[in-house]
Amino acid sequence: MNTTAAKGHILLSLTGWDPSIWVKELSQAAPERPVKLAPDGETDPDIEYAVVWKPEASALAKLPRLKAIFSLGAGVDHVFATPGLPDVPIVRVVSPDLTTRMSEYVVWQVLDHQRLGPKYRAQQAARIWEEDRGQCAAGDITVGIMGIGELGMDAAHKLRCLGFDVSGWSRTPKQVEGIICYAGREGLGEFLASADIFVVLLPLTPDTRNILDKDLFARMTKRGPLGAPVLINAGRGGLQNEADILSALDQGLLSAVTLDVFHEEPLPPESPFWGHPKVTLTPHAAAASVPSSLIRPMVAQMNAYDRGEPLINLVDRKAGY
Amino acid sequence: MNTTAAKGHILLSLTGWDPSIWVKELSQAAPERPVKLAPDGETDPDIEYAVVWKPEASALAKLPRLKAIFSLGAGVDHVFATPGLPDVPIVRVVSPDLTTRMSEYVVWQVLDHQRLGPKYRAQQAARIWEEDRGQCAAGDITVGIMGIGELGMDAAHKLRCLGFDVSGWSRTPKQVEGIICYAGREGLGEFLASADIFVVLLPLTPDTRNILDKDLFARMTKRGPLGAPVLINAGRGGLQNEADILSALDQGLLSAVTLDVFHEEPLPPESPFWGHPKVTLTPHAAAASVPSSLIRPMVAQMNAYDRGEPLINLVDRKAGY
Ligand SMILES: NC(=O)c1ccc[n+]([C@@H]2O[C@H](COP(=O)([O-])OP(=O)(O)OC[C@H]3O[C@@H](n4cnc5c(N)ncnc54)[C@H](OP(=O)(O)O)[C@@H]3O)[C@@H](O)[C@H]2O)c1
Ligand SMILES: NC(=O)c1ccc[n+]([C@@H]2O[C@H](COP(=O)([O-])OP(=O)(O)OC[C@H]3O[C@@H](n4cnc5c(N)ncnc54)[C@H](OP(=O)(O)O)[C@@H]3O)[C@@H](O)[C@H]2O)c1
Repeated sequence: MNTTAAKGHILLSLTGWDPSIWVKELSQAAPERPVKLAPDGETDPDIEYAVVWKPEASALAKLPRLKAIFSLGAGVDHVFATPGLPDVPIVRVVSPDLTTRMSEYVVWQVLDHQRLGPKYRAQQAARIWEEDRGQCAAGDITVGIMGIGELGMDAAHKLRCLGFDVSGWSRTPKQVEGIICYAGREGLGEFLASADIFVVLLPLTPDTRNILDKDLFARMTKRGPLGAPVLINAGRGGLQNEADILSALDQGLLSAVTLDVFHEEPLPPESPFWGHPKVTLTPHAAAASVPSSLIRPMVAQMNAYDRGEPLINLVDRKAGY
Repeated sequence: MNTTAAKGHILLSLTGWDPSIWVKELSQAAPERPVKLAPDGETDPDIEYAVVWKPEASALAKLPRLKAIFSLGAGVDHVFATPGLPDVPIVRVVSPDLTTRMSEYVVWQVLDHQRLGPKYRAQQAARIWEEDRGQCAAGDITVGIMGIGELGMDAAHKLRCLGFDVSGWSRTPKQVEGIICYAGREGLGEFLASADIFVVLLPLTPDTRNILDKDLFARMTKRGPLGAPVLINAGRGGLQNEADILSALDQGLLSAVTLDVFHEEPLPPESPFWGHPKVTLTPHAAAASVPSSLIRPMVAQMNAYDRGEPLINLVDRKAGY
């Protein structure tokens, strides 16, 4: 087989991201696969693969020869939200580059809370020189990873490397050396009582939507060195009840939060999160999907699938992630 | 030997720290060794050990039976600055607790610069939702550890664990897997050209005083993803020329700095560092000496030395650290 012979087309459907750099990477990695930004007509029989981030409504509906959908993110809630989603395999991103970036973010924010970043920055602004004599050490803190999958597991190991204790929660039971693992709804209560800082790296599914609500915060019963639990959500905005987060902060059920994701993104300027003294927020920037690291493995998968080899990192449609 | 029989006295001489918690820990760990906060008279023959942090002037001058001085910090510049310093062994702190705390601080601040903490906090304050599409990954950054000793080496390994490249500089040559090591004045130029973020964990000695000056900043020639080098000094204020740091920031020779230590501490309220947009500062809080973790090993050393065993973690008087 001549690998430069023309092959099926690729549909690239993105919302909120500039397509040009993705088109360029795809054209370089797969010159024999023409890239289209929208289907050619009512039905488009040329398209074999779709590469998507929040695909446009119905973009995927009428592609009779579509073989697989590649999500440009680790999460696929944006794919399931597409009307007329065809019944083809969905492949998600599992990439060392993305994983490392997420772990950087998690460790950065865990340390910023443990090492009293907000307090010391406020003191600097007020020209106050005052060491906090109660500074806890990493080993005094347990970080609970809610959703200990590809990303959560790597973050867990890196937090351990820094001296934190780590617990984890997943859908299916796990055994990991050095990490106390809890699973399912049965294990949730114990998990929530185990940690001082909660890092949320769950996918957004029917099971997890709005899971971060006042009932859950009330079950976080440990009152460690930070006074009350800290919540860091780098999963999806749909996991969180935003009104409940604000009242938990105001009631002291949570001592502080870091949020990278929101129900509505961009976060509207009038949102109370922007100016809240106990909120650190970032603009869905925890772990960027970087074209140069994602596209080549994706094209390699298309070529392998064309040769009859199986796809990897497939989404489980029933589980929803 | 009955270990509860009365033993020689301990002098505890501190400046700037509340002695009560140290007295309590010492009394619990060594009930048979009375603790004095100042010598009893002109000369005090009861004192066998001195435990000090910035000891009061001449506190150590007339102790004829003094056997050893224990510094309450890893650094001993404060001991050498004491008038009338007797010629007895000086022991410094090497403690897993202190080391872990310093590595937390180093990784926290390295991540805060690499992950654009100052930028995202400014955007939050201005209610701007804008992901930085140029976000570099840890692997794009080399962290140069200036003073790769007890603390520097641990920080280096933890930074490597997070994906950073690491180089190191020391007085004597080293070979460490995965870390490019440079040594001495001969190796300084290459070291300074090797890194994007410099973490200073040198001791303050006649050789290192004011080493962080404009000539050194000019030799930091790498212009990596952060635009210009970042300086993090958690060693001692005496290592840095503070006027040179301010002009290097203003000229763009340095892109940002984190300073935990200053020539004058507490930093005076009128210092330009407080309000400088490119400065993060903390009040000499990088790695606290915690009584509960330091005193027992110290008393164990006193007991061992009384039994004729050697002291460990001794300071090299000639090298000055
Ligand atoms: N903010 C950002 O920049 C950014 C970037 C990338 C990804 N993300 C988010 O991060 C999420 C995680 O990514 P990943 O690659 O780590 O996914 P993953 O490997 O599928 O891991 C997901 C984890 O969540 C657990 N989980 C799923 N449903 C659950 C339930 N109902 N109850 C308990 N645990 C449940 C899974 O349990 P099992 O192990 O038992 O399957 C697994 O441990 C993505 O879905 C995405 O939303 C955000
Ligand atoms: N801010 C805080 O809260 C805080 C807390 C604790 C300590 N500290 C500071 O951290 C410093 C380091 O502590 P440590 O326990 O890591 O000390 P250490 O084990 O003695 O390490 C010092 C390192 O600096 C190197 N060095 C010394 N003089 C040098 C010179 N002239 N040129 C090049 N390299 C030189 C040493 O080289 P060799 O390996 O060749 O000897 C060694 O690698 C302390 O001295 C103290 O000032 C600050």
